[in-house]
Amino acid sequence: MPDADPVADLAEGIAAGDRRALARGITLVESTRTDHREQAARLVDAVLGRTGDAVRLGISGPPGVGKSTFIESFGTRLTGAGHRVAVLAVDPTSSRSGGSILGDKTRMEDLARDPGAYVRPSPSGGELGGVARRTREALLLCEAAGFDVVLVETVGVGQSEVAVADLTDLFVLLASPAGGDDLQGIKRGIMELADVVVVTKADGDLARAAAHAAADIRRALHLLRPRHEEVAPQVVEASAVDGRGVGEVWEAVEAAHAALRASGGLDRLRAAQARAWLWSELRGALELRLRTDRAVAEALPDVEAEVGAGTLSPAAGAARLLDLLGAS
Amino acid sequence: MPDADPVADLAEGIAAGDRRALARGITLVESTRTDHREQAARLVDAVLGRTGDAVRLGISGPPGVGKSTFIESFGTRLTGAGHRVAVLAVDPTSSRSGGSILGDKTRMEDLARDPGAYVRPSPSGGELGGVARRTREALLLCEAAGFDVVLVETVGVGQSEVAVADLTDLFVLLASPAGGDDLQGIKRGIMELADVVVVTKADGDLARAAAHAAADIRRALHLLRPRHEEVAPQVVEASAVDGRGVGEVWEAVEAAHAALRASGGLDRLRAAQARAWLWSELRGALELRLRTDRAVAEALPDVEAEVGAGTLSPAAGAARLLDLLGAS
Ligand SMILES: Nc1nc2c(ncn2[C@@H]2O[C@H](COP(=O)(O)OP(=O)(O)O)[C@@H](O)[C@H]2O)c(=O)[nH]1
Ligand SMILES: Nc1nc2c(ncn2[C@@H]2O[C@H](COP(=O)(O)OP(=O)(O)O)[C@@H](O)[C@H]2O)c(=O)[nH]1
Ligand SMILES: [Mg+2]
Ligand SMILES: [Mg+2]
Repeated sequence: MPDADPVADLAEGIAAGDRRALARGITLVESTRTDHREQAARLVDAVLGRTGDAVRLGISGPPGVGKSTFIESFGTRLTGAGHRVAVLAVDPTSSRSGGSILGDKTRMEDLARDPGAYVRPSPSGGELGGVARRTREALLLCEAAGFDVVLVETVGVGQSEVAVADLTDLFVLLASPAGGDDLQGIKRGIMELADVVVVTKADGDLARAAAHAAADIRRALHLLRPRHEEVAPQVVEASAVDGRGVGEVWEAVEAAHAALRASGGLDRLRAAQARAWLWSELRGALELRLRTDRAVAEALPDVEAEVGAGTLSPAAGAARLLDLLGAS
Repeated sequence: MPDADPVADLAEGIAAGDRRALARGITLVESTRTDHREQAARLVDAVLGRTGDAVRLGISGPPGVGKSTFIESFGTRLTGAGHRVAVLAVDPTSSRSGGSILGDKTRMEDLARDPGAYVRPSPSGGELGGVARRTREALLLCEAAGFDVVLVETVGVGQSEVAVADLTDLFVLLASPAGGDDLQGIKRGIMELADVVVVTKADGDLARAAAHAAADIRRALHLLRPRHEEVAPQVVEASAVDGRGVGEVWEAVEAAHAALRASGGLDRLRAAQARAWLWSELRGALELRLRTDRAVAEALPDVEAEVGAGTLSPAAGAARLLDLLGAS
């Protein structure tokens, strides 16, 4: 970047809806280099005033449930209706070796080529906390670039779903039509995150199973506390093969989002999320400080050796190093 | 605890194999109270010399795959062969509302009553990092109490499996006999953690599907780098209903563990894990320091308000607070 202030140029390009500027901006927020982190923070600050207008939608479900296929169908329908749709991914497994065996691109081909859509593959590497931070910042850049629906996809059951719920307004959970006797294997804690549950593959041989699964889930949802008091969770049977239910999912999302806006709940939710992001920034910065402290760096080899040999417990080793922090 | 040194008493009780002392010790390591944390660290240090002799086995798989049922069957077989088996759980979803809808106790009834076994339900609450720390310390206490096989169960795909792999020697992954076209939905990063893959429910109507799934997984494993160079991952078709394959899983685990011991790989692995635990202790302690700093506490309300209102980015807010840390 040869310009005098590359960050300002990037912010301008993003605000003008320039996709290449957006891509470069996201690459910047994904970088872990210290100077890049500083630029990324300035970039986010520069566009902060243009953010906040999109529907931020988390989408999750177990591997194989049909997330990529659904997003392709759902996203294409939205762009057809004039929306601009960005798709980001939080991949909790990418830290070790990255992505599913088949990969997802093959299942979002149309959407990836759609001029109304922007599909960003998940970067590999890093802890869930770091991945969530990058995604959060990428989401803000997408909003600043004029995308009015941002889908954040994640896989699995557990921490990554909570992370995605913590950075979106509404959460769509995809459930298998054939999960078995305990609610398609969805845990209560995850089910409680859902504003819309989509039973996938409700077609052909699986249509009847999907109807049963949907009825089970509806019953279960009655027993659970919904995530937003304004939103009664909906259960939709859907098929990406014949398009069934896909429009209904968007209707449910739109209605829920409107209710949240009207009640002030959306503002409260986003304020609470921003405060939580502050804490995760703080944690990240503290760790960096520790890793770059001189006195700690000097003592570290000995402490690591003793802890590694099992003669010093990790807790005792940590206490010894923390006594040194800032002492140099 | 009225004694002069309750921690020493507890350590003694645990070393003597007293189950009530073990239960109290685990309750202590699960506590987040500052004074309890200090006692817990001393307790772990006190028993450190008695730890390290167990087979530490991670067990995971998607919800509904049959983990609880398998552990009941596997654990009972091991106690029948004279082993002492402890079962711990890492529940990544417990932070929001705790546990699966049906709960697990109903499926581990026999094992929970077995005098050769100790089944500890997962505590609710806390971040994955905190949960992993407690589990790690509970595992050491179980070893000190004489359990020679410690099973650490977790659910889901993603971060919690990596967390469990990081605190165990070997990893058993349970896969569904009917997952579909992309390897029962198991992501590559998770599959690469596995030393043994168990295709569950290989009985009745599902036996044929299980055989196909096992063949697919065997093919896929050939393409992946195994986690330990000494261990060629095994795929076993198993049924908790008729006991098929359950013994074979233990044989594979025993052989892998013996190979790791013989090569020195086990010592290297555990040393690397201990160093990683050191870092997670450090992160936890740093956050505590931040939360209890006076200058930070004073500035926090304003910064949180601005970040919440969207006028200050979380990164900029974090930078402002960190400038204050230790300045008081
Ligand atoms: N019959 C049917 N199959 C589907 C549907 N959606 C997805 N699938 C199939 O389910 C499998 C997994 O889909 P995918 O979108 O990759 O799942 P993901 O892992 O959740 O992203 C693929 O074989 C898809 O073709 C659907 O609506 N109907
Ligand atoms: N046929 C058959 N069903 C099983 C087997 N193991 C578990 N199941 C069933 O699968 C469902 C989920 O089992 P569970 O152990 O609770 O799974 P978890 O969620 O992974 O702990 C239950 O309905 C079990 O009865 C098995 O070996 N064969
Ligand atoms: Mg996918
Ligand atoms: Mg279970």
